[in-house]
Amino acid sequence: MKPNRPSITHRPLPLTAVNIEDEFWGPRLRVNSTRTVPAIYRHCKETGHVGAFALDWKPGVEPKPHFFWDSDFAKWIEGACYSLATHPNPELEALLDEVVKSVVSAQQPDGYLNTYFTVVEPEKRWSNLRDYHELYCAGHLIEAGVAYFQATGKRTLLDAVCRYADYIGETFGVEPGKRRGYCGHEEIELALIKLYRATHNERYLRLSEYFVRERGRQPYYFDLEAEARGEPPDMNHAGRYEYCQAHRPVVEQTEVVGHAVRAMYLYSAMADLAGELGDPALLSACEKLWDDLCLKKLYITGGIGPSSHNEGFTRGFDLPNDTAYAETCAAIGLALWNHRLLQLDCNSRYADMLEKALYNGAISGVSLDGERFFYTNPLAGNGDHHRVPWFGCACCPTNIVRFVASLGNFIYGQGADSLAVHLYVQGAAQTSLADGTEVRLSQQTRYPWEGRVRISIDPSRPAEFCLRLRIPGWCRQYGIKLNGEQIQPPVEKGYAILRRQWKPGDTIELDFQMPVERMAAHPNVSSDQGRVALQRGPLVYCLEGVDHDVNVRHLILPDTAKLEAHFEPELLGGMVVIEGEAAAPRDELWNSLLYTRSDQAATRPVRLKAIPYFAWDNRAAGEMTVWLPRS
Amino acid sequence: MKPNRPSITHRPLPLTAVNIEDEFWGPRLRVNSTRTVPAIYRHCKETGHVGAFALDWKPGVEPKPHFFWDSDFAKWIEGACYSLATHPNPELEALLDEVVKSVVSAQQPDGYLNTYFTVVEPEKRWSNLRDYHELYCAGHLIEAGVAYFQATGKRTLLDAVCRYADYIGETFGVEPGKRRGYCGHEEIELALIKLYRATHNERYLRLSEYFVRERGRQPYYFDLEAEARGEPPDMNHAGRYEYCQAHRPVVEQTEVVGHAVRAMYLYSAMADLAGELGDPALLSACEKLWDDLCLKKLYITGGIGPSSHNEGFTRGFDLPNDTAYAETCAAIGLALWNHRLLQLDCNSRYADMLEKALYNGAISGVSLDGERFFYTNPLAGNGDHHRVPWFGCACCPTNIVRFVASLGNFIYGQGADSLAVHLYVQGAAQTSLADGTEVRLSQQTRYPWEGRVRISIDPSRPAEFCLRLRIPGWCRQYGIKLNGEQIQPPVEKGYAILRRQWKPGDTIELDFQMPVERMAAHPNVSSDQGRVALQRGPLVYCLEGVDHDVNVRHLILPDTAKLEAHFEPELLGGMVVIEGEAAAPRDELWNSLLYTRSDQAATRPVRLKAIPYFAWDNRAAGEMTVWLPRS
Repeated sequence: MKPNRPSITHRPLPLTAVNIEDEFWGPRLRVNSTRTVPAIYRHCKETGHVGAFALDWKPGVEPKPHFFWDSDFAKWIEGACYSLATHPNPELEALLDEVVKSVVSAQQPDGYLNTYFTVVEPEKRWSNLRDYHELYCAGHLIEAGVAYFQATGKRTLLDAVCRYADYIGETFGVEPGKRRGYCGHEEIELALIKLYRATHNERYLRLSEYFVRERGRQPYYFDLEAEARGEPPDMNHAGRYEYCQAHRPVVEQTEVVGHAVRAMYLYSAMADLAGELGDPALLSACEKLWDDLCLKKLYITGGIGPSSHNEGFTRGFDLPNDTAYAETCAAIGLALWNHRLLQLDCNSRYADMLEKALYNGAISGVSLDGERFFYTNPLAGNGDHHRVPWFGCACCPTNIVRFVASLGNFIYGQGADSLAVHLYVQGAAQTSLADGTEVRLSQQTRYPWEGRVRISIDPSRPAEFCLRLRIPGWCRQYGIKLNGEQIQPPVEKGYAILRRQWKPGDTIELDFQMPVERMAAHPNVSSDQGRVALQRGPLVYCLEGVDHDVNVRHLILPDTAKLEAHFEPELLGGMVVIEGEAAAPRDELWNSLLYTRSDQAATRPVRLKAIPYFAWDNRAAGEMTVWLPRS
Repeated sequence: MKPNRPSITHRPLPLTAVNIEDEFWGPRLRVNSTRTVPAIYRHCKETGHVGAFALDWKPGVEPKPHFFWDSDFAKWIEGACYSLATHPNPELEALLDEVVKSVVSAQQPDGYLNTYFTVVEPEKRWSNLRDYHELYCAGHLIEAGVAYFQATGKRTLLDAVCRYADYIGETFGVEPGKRRGYCGHEEIELALIKLYRATHNERYLRLSEYFVRERGRQPYYFDLEAEARGEPPDMNHAGRYEYCQAHRPVVEQTEVVGHAVRAMYLYSAMADLAGELGDPALLSACEKLWDDLCLKKLYITGGIGPSSHNEGFTRGFDLPNDTAYAETCAAIGLALWNHRLLQLDCNSRYADMLEKALYNGAISGVSLDGERFFYTNPLAGNGDHHRVPWFGCACCPTNIVRFVASLGNFIYGQGADSLAVHLYVQGAAQTSLADGTEVRLSQQTRYPWEGRVRISIDPSRPAEFCLRLRIPGWCRQYGIKLNGEQIQPPVEKGYAILRRQWKPGDTIELDFQMPVERMAAHPNVSSDQGRVALQRGPLVYCLEGVDHDVNVRHLILPDTAKLEAHFEPELLGGMVVIEGEAAAPRDELWNSLLYTRSDQAATRPVRLKAIPYFAWDNRAAGEMTVWLPRS
């Protein structure tokens, strides 16, 4: 079968068109705006990230800027802009205007804009694309420039990053006299597509395409530039080319390898380009990589990249729980990539993955108070892994702040004559159809705590279009009512398809059955063999020490144990918890034994209480586990 | 309670006093003599280990000797001598005479005897005790010298190693002018005790004591010698002092740390010294270390040292199955240490540990044909771990050959008025009591395949003494008959105590019930949670791919499944196998899933067949597992 020419069928609605009034997300967005945005700015200020743009650092002065600082601060700008776009805040806007002015002031006459390689090691500009994150920093500045423009309408930073991108385009490419380089840490590729979409300047699309297609071609650029530095080729990386997905041309890549965040950012750009260029080979590569990831290398939480060694992937089914690296940024990257695939192919498998990362392994990266962060997100622990206010390598806090603020982007998709609801979040969206009809779509729901969703469709006049409603992959049973009548619409790629003439006041009621489910992992995942994880709706659960008087890592869950879910309004701002009867070993038996006959390993009944995984480590420290041995 | 002054209460019988005619061990000893001894000699010859003693290596010639070669070849000499002691073989004796002549010819006028530091880097003699295994090699030469003397009565090598030990004693010690060094890899400590026992020269006991007591004192010798070399202290070892148990004085050590083989050799010397010196502090340290090891850091196979990183120990309960390092030498070391503790304290817990290592994680190190070896002994695998004929670092093959050949040493212990049977092995032992009575004790048994043992006691005249019969720790139910009458003798520290006047023709029948047992691990061992291992008698079992048409790593064992053991005479020379009904996942379900609801993870019944762990990888390659998920 000849592949279809891919295209972007369902573009996201702009952030400003989506209003979120959700019991689950409302408080998180508020905390993100009022706590996380200021906290990260404070850290960036204190550490010198902000001041670096004054270009007045002198040798010997501490702290010495790091070559990835610009990216951290750019991600804060981007996140603050998303927050501003949906929650006008004159003070924040004034602050943004001021820092943008400072950023732009650091731009060099040739367009170059990088504090480290302007001040600290100017002689090393473009000398080590493999290790120095130079184009990666450029990418984040570009994303910041687009976000600032979209939030404020001000072109200051957008114009500056366009000049920078133009300069980069003059420097890199296949044309004679240009360097055939690409960045060791992907990011600029997806940023340039955003810049193209914001400016409609096709140069940026072509430059992104160049970076993506050049990657992995021989002779390897990283070898050439190492040689130019007088160094042996690629000596710093044991995983070498795979580490940064530069081992072969991207369309020939079939297995996810190397650094997980880098991989996700590259694949995101590949998906974007597949749509913009209509290139089936890029989409097909994405699909193969997606299968490899989602069938072999994904934690049930949406965490990816098990190994701290390369901050990334290992062999298939290697998913240890205690030592899971599962970087917050990687879960965010998984969401970003799947959101892009969803725009090309309205298939609920992509929305499932977006939702899985969003509700579990990504937001676990930030505390409920919004000011402490996980870099890694293990699925089990002995009580010594805690969120902290900041990291020397601050990619995760600055990623989570922009990711949470951009939630509105992920909820809906709009096609030529189609509106898709990808996520169930209470609130409303406003858009206009091709024929000019205004449509307001609003959701009433307690999702993810409950599976009922009431959707009201209010077109400004009766209008025919297709409404696509995602049937979540976690759901076994559901009902759909249209204006009070049970209906059974066709389901395509996991979306219920409701094509009709919609009239003001039309309502749909969705009822997704949301029982507690015991999940099992593929038998090749030896870490999870003989174990189950608890899941309800999109949420993966875990057990925390603070809710138990035994070591939760010792608990055994009988297959026959009844598990019940209920909402606890006082717990961590309100959580649905799962409770039931489990068994715990009798500690006294094990004081003087390492092994014994299993029929002598007596247990006693213990009340089990599970909370959503994302919410762990917000109370007293203690053991935590996601996967429980069954009996 | 003030500790008793430890002493050696039950010395082993000499090898020549023990005859083994055992269905299980007979073939293994024969293969060891006829296949392993010649094969290892051949490898030592081909690789240059043997020729190195000619001291004619020249720079540029390959292979270049390695600084641990002498130890490998010394262990072969030792093993060949044990074999010769019990199985006279003029050809082997002639060969030994010849190689001993060559070894002795390499001794320097000052007594020094090390090929590498005589020929390859003579300027580095004693310059780096931490890394260069110099005293370790000396230790193995000493053990070889003692073994050759005991097997042949010839003093050639014994005299040479005495001269070498004397020279070492002049070089190292606390006296002014001596170096206060000790070896990075322990071995010489236990070797010097053997030398003391063979020669009754107390200098060697004192030198051993010096090496043991000096270890871990500050300032650290390894730092001083590094400084003398102009190097930063101990830069090569991340685990540093712990790696070679030199982090603190040995009597203050309470946790087993670092390289597992080094630890076992040190603790063996500590146990020997505790007995020889009557030092309760040394015994008490051994007991604390034993608890730490046996309650937290021991594989069920007797394998120890989970990590390849340091070939050794990590934190308690960290016992991964796939990546278990569990070096063959370490299991042998575990047996050696416990055999020494058993001589001080006739407690079956030590014999249990000796037996566990012996029947599982140690002899797994050699193929049934005696010519291929494991260096590491994982408890699970995907079919890519196989025994090989030789290793660049050949410690394991040369250790297994001497260990198997020395089996006779481990079976009995003799005290002042006591004979102890530690292991049940068919054959006979001959000894004489203090009063001159000759006693012949013979065992008839199919142990470990069956639990019945018939013991005949034949004193040359009626004599009162105490017979101690070990009740294996794995046994729940047993019966003892004396001359056909059921008796219930008292049990002290796991030994049935039969004190009486023994007459010629007295017989004891032991019947140890040997059902198939499902074993469980301490709930802190997360790798084994929700799993069971099969054990019968002292043997731990495993499942191998070759006996199944499904991936054995996917098999699930219901708690209710009936398991039956029977002897298969045609299988690998005769093995008791365990069979029963297990369940396997339906593969078709998992082709397109990584996680699913556990109630949908349907299984189908599958016939399970388990073989003794030590015998795995003697047929077609495939998956293997010891720990099965239960249901």
